[in-house]
Amino acid sequence: MGSVTGRSLKLSLYGESHGVGIGVVIDGLPSGYHIDMDPVIKSMKRRAPGGSGVWATKRKEEDIPEIMSGIWNGYTTGTPLCAMIRNTDTRSSDYSDALRIPRPGHADITGNLRYSGYSDPRGGGHFSGRLTAGMVFAGAVCEQILKSSLPLIIYSQIRSIGKVIDIGDAEYADDMLIMELMGSEFPVMDRDSGEKMRKVIADAAAEGDSVGGVISTFIKGFPSGIGDPVFEGMESGLASAIFSVPGVKGVEFGSGFAGSALMGSQNNDVPFYPEDGENHGYKDISYKTNNSGGIQGGITNGMPIVIRTAFRPTASIGREQMSVDVVKGAETQLKVTGRHDPCIVPRAIPVIEAVCAYKLLDHLITSGQLKRKGISI
Amino acid sequence: MGSVTGRSLKLSLYGESHGVGIGVVIDGLPSGYHIDMDPVIKSMKRRAPGGSGVWATKRKEEDIPEIMSGIWNGYTTGTPLCAMIRNTDTRSSDYSDALRIPRPGHADITGNLRYSGYSDPRGGGHFSGRLTAGMVFAGAVCEQILKSSLPLIIYSQIRSIGKVIDIGDAEYADDMLIMELMGSEFPVMDRDSGEKMRKVIADAAAEGDSVGGVISTFIKGFPSGIGDPVFEGMESGLASAIFSVPGVKGVEFGSGFAGSALMGSQNNDVPFYPEDGENHGYKDISYKTNNSGGIQGGITNGMPIVIRTAFRPTASIGREQMSVDVVKGAETQLKVTGRHDPCIVPRAIPVIEAVCAYKLLDHLITSGQLKRKGISI
Amino acid sequence: MGSVTGRSLKLSLYGESHGVGIGVVIDGLPSGYHIDMDPVIKSMKRRAPGGSGVWATKRKEEDIPEIMSGIWNGYTTGTPLCAMIRNTDTRSSDYSDALRIPRPGHADITGNLRYSGYSDPRGGGHFSGRLTAGMVFAGAVCEQILKSSLPLIIYSQIRSIGKVIDIGDAEYADDMLIMELMGSEFPVMDRDSGEKMRKVIADAAAEGDSVGGVISTFIKGFPSGIGDPVFEGMESGLASAIFSVPGVKGVEFGSGFAGSALMGSQNNDVPFYPEDGENHGYKDISYKTNNSGGIQGGITNGMPIVIRTAFRPTASIGREQMSVDVVKGAETQLKVTGRHDPCIVPRAIPVIEAVCAYKLLDHLITSGQLKRKGISI
Amino acid sequence: MGSVTGRSLKLSLYGESHGVGIGVVIDGLPSGYHIDMDPVIKSMKRRAPGGSGVWATKRKEEDIPEIMSGIWNGYTTGTPLCAMIRNTDTRSSDYSDALRIPRPGHADITGNLRYSGYSDPRGGGHFSGRLTAGMVFAGAVCEQILKSSLPLIIYSQIRSIGKVIDIGDAEYADDMLIMELMGSEFPVMDRDSGEKMRKVIADAAAEGDSVGGVISTFIKGFPSGIGDPVFEGMESGLASAIFSVPGVKGVEFGSGFAGSALMGSQNNDVPFYPEDGENHGYKDISYKTNNSGGIQGGITNGMPIVIRTAFRPTASIGREQMSVDVVKGAETQLKVTGRHDPCIVPRAIPVIEAVCAYKLLDHLITSGQLKRKGISI
Repeated sequence: MGSVTGRSLKLSLYGESHGVGIGVVIDGLPSGYHIDMDPVIKSMKRRAPGGSGVWATKRKEEDIPEIMSGIWNGYTTGTPLCAMIRNTDTRSSDYSDALRIPRPGHADITGNLRYSGYSDPRGGGHFSGRLTAGMVFAGAVCEQILKSSLPLIIYSQIRSIGKVIDIGDAEYADDMLIMELMGSEFPVMDRDSGEKMRKVIADAAAEGDSVGGVISTFIKGFPSGIGDPVFEGMESGLASAIFSVPGVKGVEFGSGFAGSALMGSQNNDVPFYPEDGENHGYKDISYKTNNSGGIQGGITNGMPIVIRTAFRPTASIGREQMSVDVVKGAETQLKVTGRHDPCIVPRAIPVIEAVCAYKLLDHLITSGQLKRKGISI
Repeated sequence: MGSVTGRSLKLSLYGESHGVGIGVVIDGLPSGYHIDMDPVIKSMKRRAPGGSGVWATKRKEEDIPEIMSGIWNGYTTGTPLCAMIRNTDTRSSDYSDALRIPRPGHADITGNLRYSGYSDPRGGGHFSGRLTAGMVFAGAVCEQILKSSLPLIIYSQIRSIGKVIDIGDAEYADDMLIMELMGSEFPVMDRDSGEKMRKVIADAAAEGDSVGGVISTFIKGFPSGIGDPVFEGMESGLASAIFSVPGVKGVEFGSGFAGSALMGSQNNDVPFYPEDGENHGYKDISYKTNNSGGIQGGITNGMPIVIRTAFRPTASIGREQMSVDVVKGAETQLKVTGRHDPCIVPRAIPVIEAVCAYKLLDHLITSGQLKRKGISI
Repeated sequence: MGSVTGRSLKLSLYGESHGVGIGVVIDGLPSGYHIDMDPVIKSMKRRAPGGSGVWATKRKEEDIPEIMSGIWNGYTTGTPLCAMIRNTDTRSSDYSDALRIPRPGHADITGNLRYSGYSDPRGGGHFSGRLTAGMVFAGAVCEQILKSSLPLIIYSQIRSIGKVIDIGDAEYADDMLIMELMGSEFPVMDRDSGEKMRKVIADAAAEGDSVGGVISTFIKGFPSGIGDPVFEGMESGLASAIFSVPGVKGVEFGSGFAGSALMGSQNNDVPFYPEDGENHGYKDISYKTNNSGGIQGGITNGMPIVIRTAFRPTASIGREQMSVDVVKGAETQLKVTGRHDPCIVPRAIPVIEAVCAYKLLDHLITSGQLKRKGISI
Repeated sequence: MGSVTGRSLKLSLYGESHGVGIGVVIDGLPSGYHIDMDPVIKSMKRRAPGGSGVWATKRKEEDIPEIMSGIWNGYTTGTPLCAMIRNTDTRSSDYSDALRIPRPGHADITGNLRYSGYSDPRGGGHFSGRLTAGMVFAGAVCEQILKSSLPLIIYSQIRSIGKVIDIGDAEYADDMLIMELMGSEFPVMDRDSGEKMRKVIADAAAEGDSVGGVISTFIKGFPSGIGDPVFEGMESGLASAIFSVPGVKGVEFGSGFAGSALMGSQNNDVPFYPEDGENHGYKDISYKTNNSGGIQGGITNGMPIVIRTAFRPTASIGREQMSVDVVKGAETQLKVTGRHDPCIVPRAIPVIEAVCAYKLLDHLITSGQLKRKGISI
């Protein structure tokens, strides 16, 4: 209960970090869309452990999904798409004490309380970040479908790592820079800021510590008029999906928290018509600013959707920490072994983009605005 | 589509700002709970327009809900509870131009795009903040049911108005101060900060402008082990509900955005046993800090749930703004008449508390942990 | 929990038989559809008590719905439509013993068990057939929207009352006869069968007894290719909705139970092309028979949807019955006073048609095939 | 869209008949329940093709599920249980013409219309009866969990095959006979009737034809007071689940269609107290008859739940049939090759029992009445 979501497009996520495997069932995909597995695999590699960066865990896994159903001759059938990824490089002994000495910052304690001692504790079980591989698979498929109908671009900027903030707002980056950001494992606007961020991560790693950060995500080319009022507003949907990613502790749209310090006359986005002399009505309206982050009243307004996501520092750290021994009922020291990311932020980028792509497609299908592919012979 | 939500406990919100009335249907309430209407009415008055504060609109409405069903002899029947509130003080002429000259910052444009020109534009129609009266009603009923089973406390602090930040963190307030905060229309820790905030609001009002702010909300006494993994985590649920409140642009839990700048060794909450010598196991664990805001892995850990919600400044302002005339296809000046709040934050407190109470009860019922009231004769 | 349903189009039903009133919230209606209240009222009158027939209760209620929201200037706004009907002619004293001496065949006992003694027992409370007034309202609105896009016809035949079966299958009635059936309060193909049925009902009434029957419902003009596989097949959806109507104990489609006695070579519907020489592909296929009742694999095939619904005899009967006194723990005699229908079948016809219209519209919207009305100015 | 269902307990079914494999994800299982795979495999064998009976297809498949997640050390973890079954004995060439010459009675045409020509046509794709293997797996797990808390018995009787009706109503069978029925591949009360039924099937097979039938299913030991009013009544839920099984065209409860011919005084089930002198209140009530089939007002009354399900004859038959060539737009003869069951009824029994077990557990969890297993250490 909790691992299924969606309205018109349903996701069922399954698996545990050190079990047989993990996977996802996607039900409600429109039929007749060609799915190219190369960009899907590429997205998954961005998330996968074992990259070359200073930030990545040394767990090595190929994360090659096996398509069990839902794609035939390269096209979506319209019936459920199931992808499965077997776990290969698991070393459960690294986690053998998790039940007795819970790891601070993890779901070891709460998972145990929720499931009365029966949840799989190895590597966090179903609460593991490994489950996000299924999210990335699903999101990459959704993004591909969106892009075949829309001029959609989703990209992100590492806005901050620890106390280091990137200089420059990627919302206003030019096309070439956007391409660069999309192709980078560590997308920043300012090279110097990026260097400082990497150093912060390397320093944390050297000390057996970890560090958090903020991701800015930008979605351009999504149509206006999508979203529903009240409980199914676009912000509710995106925030709900983003908070389902392990480690997220804050989400804001547009001017967000900073906007709360502005005056209404500053924060209101003034509508106008681009000057071609032919505009009128609602469809052609643009805005002089984007403090609303592309969403007003829960509904898209055609401006870029701008989201910032705060990640806490990785809970797993190598240095000694205090915890409790639940059998003795006493405090004890704990040194978490195993392989951990000193900073999850770079690998989290494709995950955030994936859950956003999923939510956008769910909204688009729900709105009845997705163009149907294929014709009945 | 979008005005119904919930898993075990469903809310259906209906109504338009200047139509016949607004209301809510709550389906899934446990039977046999006594509902005292006094605290419900009191919550609704906190939200209602026409208060004495500098922040409030001058629209006068009693907002007395009529219970259509679901309560019999003072107790919940277990079948749907419907409450209806008639609109009385509506002056639609104030909004007559809304279709032709949309108000910046409102859902006038997006609502029109979503509903192809047919949504009721008067006062924002279904997008109006007036709909939150139904949320407050539902939340007050839910809070009462929660409190009859649990030692639950929900209270809030105005953390900031504009650039003025309250001094002191109400998470650590003592019981007397908490009582004071709960009883206040403008709850702050520091009297001076409160004065400055009111001045910021009064100044904004004097200039025909508006100002935003941040609300901190604290929930104490809710049991640990509640929430579900992944998509139905407690943060996803609460954030989704909070973003359904008009004007919210950011939500964070625990250390939130600030926590992303910390090291893992600082941010991890260290578990320990309170020193009575009898503790052991998972249930008795407490934590030395609360950076997680009471939620780990989407599941409550027994610590206070700490939420901060960013409100943008009220979109309706009295001074002239630029907008467009959608018939002419040209820019034009607009002076929004009608009655507006220069700051929505104080009246929004009971709304945020209400949607949280609703979500907590939905989670509690879903978990099967709500004690059943009543016995079959 | 249980009084909300729907995927793209959600219904929330509320109210109790002898409370303040009953009503329905419909969320997800497409915007821009003109709703004429005359046919809605007409449908509600077909269901309302107090008709002239021998079958009807003498409870007199106008059942005039008040539209609280969702229709503006005669058109659907796209946001929730709430209709409310106040209860007027309630005589609760008729039911004062319901808690102590439950009425056989009613939900008095099970409702009490479900809600631990707190459900409103007066007139069956939320379990009352009176709630179907909300269903009929919703269905009439849905039918009108369907008809504005499609050449849809929904009509019914009383197939049997007690042991009397109507002669002739209304699936093959000509247009004039169909019009007659649609206009009749007691629609049968064969006048003599109708007379015999009325006599069976009158005889039952005279004896303080009641009688059941079967309704055949036919839906023509609904497009092919609508429905989803497995759990959201058209049969699952329609059956689920129909079984939500009090008194229904059986539902079958097409050849149904009788079809189970046929050979595959008899029951398979042979596809063919109508002989205009221009047909090909899947869209143009018709079938030589309709044993599938218009649904194959859960998806419509373009043939008439044919449903038969079995109603048990009305549980409320005037003659003495045995029951129990739950306080004494002893058997006792019970004479149910109050006003009852000796046969619910004629008044149930608009209810069955209504829940079908609702489900068809929900399916059509979900499929993305509903034409959008209105244009954005 | 359509292959996910459930409220507290969600099922996601995936796979196509001739694709890589099929499977199911079950989300919401209570943690801490021991699952013995032997009875699960046994249930799946009852459904699997290749049995010794005259009724079974000659397709040979082991149908051994691989547990991907959700069970750890033999106990449910509480997080999603995924089981996967690879397809092995597929001969797609048997179905190569399905796109061009659709098979009468199958979903070939409607599936094509629904998915615009992209659904996998091989063996019916996602519409294939093979998907029911996932239902049986899920149902067997649910049944085991129910039985560990309740004295639950689910069993079935083949009520009719073609025109041959079994003599005797298994609702009143004694314990020994019930055990026999539960252990039989072809459960009937009367040996002679069983022989006649088998002959009807063998004759149909010999003629390249098929035959339908009716299954009676009985559920004993399920508690009273479970179910919700209106749209989530027990009949709505069970019927919806049963109609999701391919080939079902009718469902009735208790006296069902036959009950519609009775008088109210005959059909009402009279409540009484079993004569131990200590009974009183609602919980202890029993009934002299069971025309309601154990469900009143959508809520269980503690009597056996009695369901009858009508299966049409298998659509696949060996003899020549007429169909259309969709390319030529002309009628043509078709001889469906491949391996088919001349009667699906015996193999459908575990499927019907499985979807019922699933729905009962979903209802029980939703009601909050399932006893929690396990304790937090």
